[in-house]
Amino acid sequence: MKERNVKFKGKRMGELIFIGMGLYSEKSMSVEALEIARSVDLIYLERYTSIMPGLNVARLRNLLGRDDIIEVKRSDLEENMYKIISEAQSKKVAILIPGDPFIATTHMAIRVEAEKKGIKTRVIHGVSILTAIPGITGLHAYKFGRVVTVTFPNGGRLSETPYDVTKTNLKCNLHTVLLLDIRVEEGRYMTIKDAISILEELESIRGEGVFSDDRLVIGIARAGSPDCKVRADILCNIKTLDFGPPPHCIVVPASLHFTEAEALVVLAKAPKEIVMRMVVK
Amino acid sequence: MKERNVKFKGKRMGELIFIGMGLYSEKSMSVEALEIARSVDLIYLERYTSIMPGLNVARLRNLLGRDDIIEVKRSDLEENMYKIISEAQSKKVAILIPGDPFIATTHMAIRVEAEKKGIKTRVIHGVSILTAIPGITGLHAYKFGRVVTVTFPNGGRLSETPYDVTKTNLKCNLHTVLLLDIRVEEGRYMTIKDAISILEELESIRGEGVFSDDRLVIGIARAGSPDCKVRADILCNIKTLDFGPPPHCIVVPASLHFTEAEALVVLAKAPKEIVMRMVVK
Repeated sequence: MKERNVKFKGKRMGELIFIGMGLYSEKSMSVEALEIARSVDLIYLERYTSIMPGLNVARLRNLLGRDDIIEVKRSDLEENMYKIISEAQSKKVAILIPGDPFIATTHMAIRVEAEKKGIKTRVIHGVSILTAIPGITGLHAYKFGRVVTVTFPNGGRLSETPYDVTKTNLKCNLHTVLLLDIRVEEGRYMTIKDAISILEELESIRGEGVFSDDRLVIGIARAGSPDCKVRADILCNIKTLDFGPPPHCIVVPASLHFTEAEALVVLAKAPKEIVMRMVVK
Repeated sequence: MKERNVKFKGKRMGELIFIGMGLYSEKSMSVEALEIARSVDLIYLERYTSIMPGLNVARLRNLLGRDDIIEVKRSDLEENMYKIISEAQSKKVAILIPGDPFIATTHMAIRVEAEKKGIKTRVIHGVSILTAIPGITGLHAYKFGRVVTVTFPNGGRLSETPYDVTKTNLKCNLHTVLLLDIRVEEGRYMTIKDAISILEELESIRGEGVFSDDRLVIGIARAGSPDCKVRADILCNIKTLDFGPPPHCIVVPASLHFTEAEALVVLAKAPKEIVMRMVVK
């Protein structure tokens, strides 16, 4: 019994901490995140689930005052996760993650596995694109439905999920966030223009008017960055615009409250006559 | 023409910056937020839209190195917003806000009014409860439906919106976040226990089984704080638990992916047999 206790105590000395870095640069980290990242025994950096446009690893090293930041690949946190879990049994280990650590579901597996082995885990939440969108667009946070990702065609096959989710949300009078596929390790990221081509192709297959030419959509590039670009207009106009570097996303608004319409005009240069038509009387 | 340009330039010198402070304490602010808050001409602090359990104004003053932080009431940012807007015409003005600045819709009006007057506005996003919930519970972020607030009865009348929203989300197989009413200026905040009483009363009126005794719910207290408490169990068990100080919220899960069920067992002490029944085969 004594031995078990000692063993247990030994295990509890380690810790696995997931740190969300937010949307833009190393300075998007919270003060709390910074203090933890400076003090842990081992620190990993994951940059494959999203793009932080202003993140510079040299500046991050400088800010943390440490040159031992280890960059990990997807395989390090998936197939080979037990290496890091085993390190966290006796050491304080932090993993730096773009945005919020658990908006991409991929990191929950390593957290749950660690907890099952009796390792304490902790989360330092980060700002996520999902939080940022109401502030960028002026759309009310409680009027969003389910979020969905537009993915690159898989062997030529298009997923119809973005079509179905947007259709259901519109029917329930809810706004839809369409996240766009990012494959950092392959150097591919989907632009708003790419995504609209896919959505138009889905429209030509389904023909239910969810992504018709005159559908109001909002294009957002680099949410949370100083050069964030946001434009609201009908689909066929948005697809002609250049939104610049990634990450990009799209919002499909349902009918609007008057204050939402006004915010879209002021913040996203929406054509007044188009958004005013969508206001519920 | 020249005069107009000069006037315009004069106006552009000011700026109105909305700074999200995140969920827990002054250290939940990002490094970027801190740098801006230290450098602006005027700084306001709003503490009525949510509760940050670890926020201490003296420590905040210390962290920002300034003793001129002005605490505002709701009326200062609503009826009397033009005072601050007018200050922002020539000065850099920041408003510190709990969580993310625009998850509560109340602050969008002042932002839009300022922009309409030609004043530059900026948002430093903060961590919000809505971002934090997937990380705390292990539920997948893309499986949440519309969020809703359970409000205190208004003159004895209960809003049925939480019932309708949860019912619709369950029908679409989506999880529901129930935020609980907080009236900081009146010193009232709704606990999980209070909210469940209201939900049970709605159930007795509607009788459609949305909030039956055996409904799986997750109680979350102090999300983003070091002493965050999260428990998943059936409604009639959750209502007997003491979750401690605010803020509280409730999540009603729809059917679960296997990994979600496993995470609820590990992270929220959910009874295994209950969550496993909810796993979609």
